Formats: sequence, C-alpha cells, structure tokens
Amino acid sequence: MFVAAVYRGFITFASMTQQEKPLILICNDDGITAPGIKATVEVMSSFGQVVVVAPDSPQSGMGHAITINKPLRMIKNNQFGDEIESYQCSGTPADCVKLAVDKVLHRKPDLLVSGINHGSNSSINVIYSGTMSAAMEGAIEGIPSLGFSLLDFSWDADFSAAKVYMKIIIRNVFHHGMPKATLLSVNIPNVSEDEIKGIKVCRQARAKWVEEFDHRQDPHGRDYFWLTGKFTNMDKGEDTDEWALDNNYVSLVPVQFDLTAHHAIQPLNSWDFS
Amino acid sequence: MFVAAVYRGFITFASMTQQEKPLILICNDDGITAPGIKATVEVMSSFGQVVVVAPDSPQSGMGHAITINKPLRMIKNNQFGDEIESYQCSGTPADCVKLAVDKVLHRKPDLLVSGINHGSNSSINVIYSGTMSAAMEGAIEGIPSLGFSLLDFSWDADFSAAKVYMKIIIRNVFHHGMPKATLLSVNIPNVSEDEIKGIKVCRQARAKWVEEFDHRQDPHGRDYFWLTGKFTNMDKGEDTDEWALDNNYVSLVPVQFDLTAHHAIQPLNSWDFS
Repeated sequence: MFVAAVYRGFITFASMTQQEKPLILICNDDGITAPGIKATVEVMSSFGQVVVVAPDSPQSGMGHAITINKPLRMIKNNQFGDEIESYQCSGTPADCVKLAVDKVLHRKPDLLVSGINHGSNSSINVIYSGTMSAAMEGAIEGIPSLGFSLLDFSWDADFSAAKVYMKIIIRNVFHHGMPKATLLSVNIPNVSEDEIKGIKVCRQARAKWVEEFDHRQDPHGRDYFWLTGKFTNMDKGEDTDEWALDNNYVSLVPVQFDLTAHHAIQPLNSWDFS
Repeated sequence: MFVAAVYRGFITFASMTQQEKPLILICNDDGITAPGIKATVEVMSSFGQVVVVAPDSPQSGMGHAITINKPLRMIKNNQFGDEIESYQCSGTPADCVKLAVDKVLHRKPDLLVSGINHGSNSSINVIYSGTMSAAMEGAIEGIPSLGFSLLDFSWDADFSAAKVYMKIIIRNVFHHGMPKATLLSVNIPNVSEDEIKGIKVCRQARAKWVEEFDHRQDPHGRDYFWLTGKFTNMDKGEDTDEWALDNNYVSLVPVQFDLTAHHAIQPLNSWDFS
C-alpha cells in the first residue's frame, strides 16, 4: 500500500514505487454531475487510482456543515464510466469525505482533491466554501488535500487552463510532499491558458461580503429574503490571492485548520478574571 | 450612537457614555427556543439593549453554511417577553447574523454574543459549530463577537455557572476591548460553580473526530448511514482548551478568520511551477 509519510514537517510520498498507484479521493460541492469534477477526474486519473464520493445535489455555501440530525444516503453510480469507482451522497462535502474514508475506502486515501469548483474560493470565501470544507476535512484527517476553483460560475466553463495548472501543482505535491497540518487552496483566473502568467503563492486577502438582502413578498403576502451581497476587498497587498487573480496569476494559498489567534493570547492574559 | 473604536489593534468601547446603552445582537445554533439562548438574554440584558435573531430550528453542525439557493423567512416573535425584540429565522446561524445587520438593526451592533450552546465547541469543534459560525460572521463584519458553550448537551442543562463566567468575560470585553480581527470562544465545564477553578486563556487543542458511521437498512431494504464518531485528543499540551476543561477551568480561545497558514508560504515558494 502506498503510504504518505511525515518528514521534516512535510507529508511526503517517498514510499511510492513504480508498482504502487496512489489512491486519490475526489469530492466537490457543485454535485457529482458538475463539469468541474469531471475535469478533476480526467486529470487525476493520470496520477493514480481515483475514487469519487460527491454530493448528489449542489452544496455551494455549505461551509464546514456536517449532517448530525438525519441519516445519509450513498449510492454507487457510473457517472464517470466503468473504470472509475464513484458514489453520490445525500450529505455535505464534509460528510462525503467522512463517509468515503470510513465506508468506501476503509483507509485514508493518499491524496484528496476537491473541485474544480465553479466560482471563486479566494480570500474570505474559503470559510463559506463547500469545496474547501471537503479539503479541510481531508487535512484534519491527515490526508494531503487540495481544493481547486475556477473563477467562472457557468456550467459550460472552460476548464482547460485549470487542468494544466492542476497537473503542475499535483506534480509538486508528489515531489515535495505537503506542508504539515495545511491544505492548499488553488484559484484559477477566468482567462485563456496563454494569458495566465504563472502561479503565485499568496496569503488570503482581507475582504468580506457586504450583504444586501433582496426583500420580497410571496403570493400569500408573506415576506421572504434572498441573500445577495457585494464582495469588498479591503486589502491593498500585492501578496494576496485577490491581487494575484486580478493580475492573471493562479493563486495558491496554504490554509490551516488551527483557528487559534495565537497573537491574541498574551494580551488576553492581562484581563481581570476575578 | 454607541460606537466601538479601534485603538492599538483593539476594538475599544471608549466612546460609551452613561446615557448610551450598547446594542447587543444575540444568536445561537440550537434554535430560538433553546434554554441556552434564554440564559444569554438574561445576562446580556444587564449590559445593554438586546436584540435576538436566531434560527427557528436546531442548526448544530452547520459550520459556516450560508443559504444561497433558497429564500429566507424571518418572523418577529415575543419568545423573551415584550421587553426584548426577537426574531426567528429559517436560515443558518451565519444567515441570522447577516440578516440581523442588514434588515433588523440597519447598522452593526456593538457586540454579538452567540449561545450559550448546549455542548462543547472546544478544539476542532469550532470548525463544525454553528454557534461559533455566528460569532465568526460577526467578527468578519467587524463586530466584537463571542461564542459561549456549556459542556452539557441536555435541554435541562444548568446554566448558572456559565452565566457567572459570561458576566466576568463580557465585563472585560467592555473594559479592554476586543483583539482586532479576533473572536472569542468560551467553553464552560459541566460542573458546579464552586468546582470551577477560574478562566484560562488557551489555544485550540490538536484533536479530531474519528468517524464510525452506523450503517442501517430502512424498511424498504435501502442503506442509510448515521454519523457517529469518537473525539480524539492528540495534544498533550497544558495550554490547550481540552486540558483546561478537563481540569475544571473555563477555556477562552481567541479565534481568527484569516485561515492562511503563513508558515507554509516560504517552503511553497521553493516549488517548481514551470
């Protein structure tokens, strides 16, 4: 069995031999029928044995939701042909990863790739993103995990450039290993391959959504609200994912799941708790 | 209007006068009828003008989910008597905060308190927690925000000690202000007030859930799965929330929403992206 090892704080793939194919779990949040996950299956099949466990319906904006209060369904299908083992699941992206590890693979996969998402997961979007929650769930489980997103919401988005950059990044993951307790968030600008200037390692830009709910009344005279909002980048830094994407670079942000604000521990210790 | 100001990286409450009462938004994830949110309303009413916008049904495990693909309902109710303005909302905790700011308060509140949650939100649970997602949404909006959780899942949990410690911590927030771009996660052990040894400022313990899905068949012979799991603490540190709670301390963890793994940026820059 191909096993990822931990070496100098990196998860490495040193024990891989020619005979062993890595086991790669693929998930997303747009649902198993989305073109973006098909692009991932096409790329990742060249790297190892692919198994897909993905939501049976769109799960955008699900953040790190998990399903506690109702049971999950999971059905084997052949969405990607007879060669690829694939399952659709009634749960969230994080549920899919948990169920895949426990009930489908019966072990940790060697790699987890989530996406390609239809739409951006840059900056603060990483918190709301189902795509990134699948990758984060993988990283929490100790699986080298990446999420890919293309800045195009449309169903007929062109994933050709995204596929090229997925290959480049995955080759590096197999060569260098993954930083420990870290997942990777990759966003690809919505331009043609020859317009992309390369890959930039970035930090998450300081940005937020300013909400403007659309207030309506239903035919029975009752109020309802649609969430709409405007993305607002408050960060002028040229080392951010927003800057990279605005300047036609692929952004690569290392993401952590230790949410402790370590810098705040010392000042909080001066508080009076008596 | 009472306005929180930013001073030396802390959000302070320096502009408060005797005449002005701070506006306090209260939310939770157990739903507006949960005893835990009633305890919060009781405590926070002594600090300012309280407005409640909370889910109309339990939302545990919703992580940072937001509702994109269906409209939200929000109804004014008098769950906490005629003195307290209160609304129940069909959305997630994060939806409740967004809707409260845009359509109920029409401005940022001066403080946001989420909870008291029925059950722990220590360690990795912060990522899955609806309670903490409400507080995180507030912090992203620039509102000083805290989430409180009692380590007792039962509906008839005793919140008396939790209320005492909520008062102590909120008094400090008004006195010192909040660390910038940081929210606070407070967990209270499930012991009587006189057994609690005090408050410890902590980091999130390195821990995870090991899933064991319960595989069943419905009356029609179809498979379904219930999520169950075992919490596994892999962290021996005595500066963690798990250690504090195990030793009858209230844990106070500063939490950030910049998820960049800054330490991983330098090694990733050595990757070959050509």
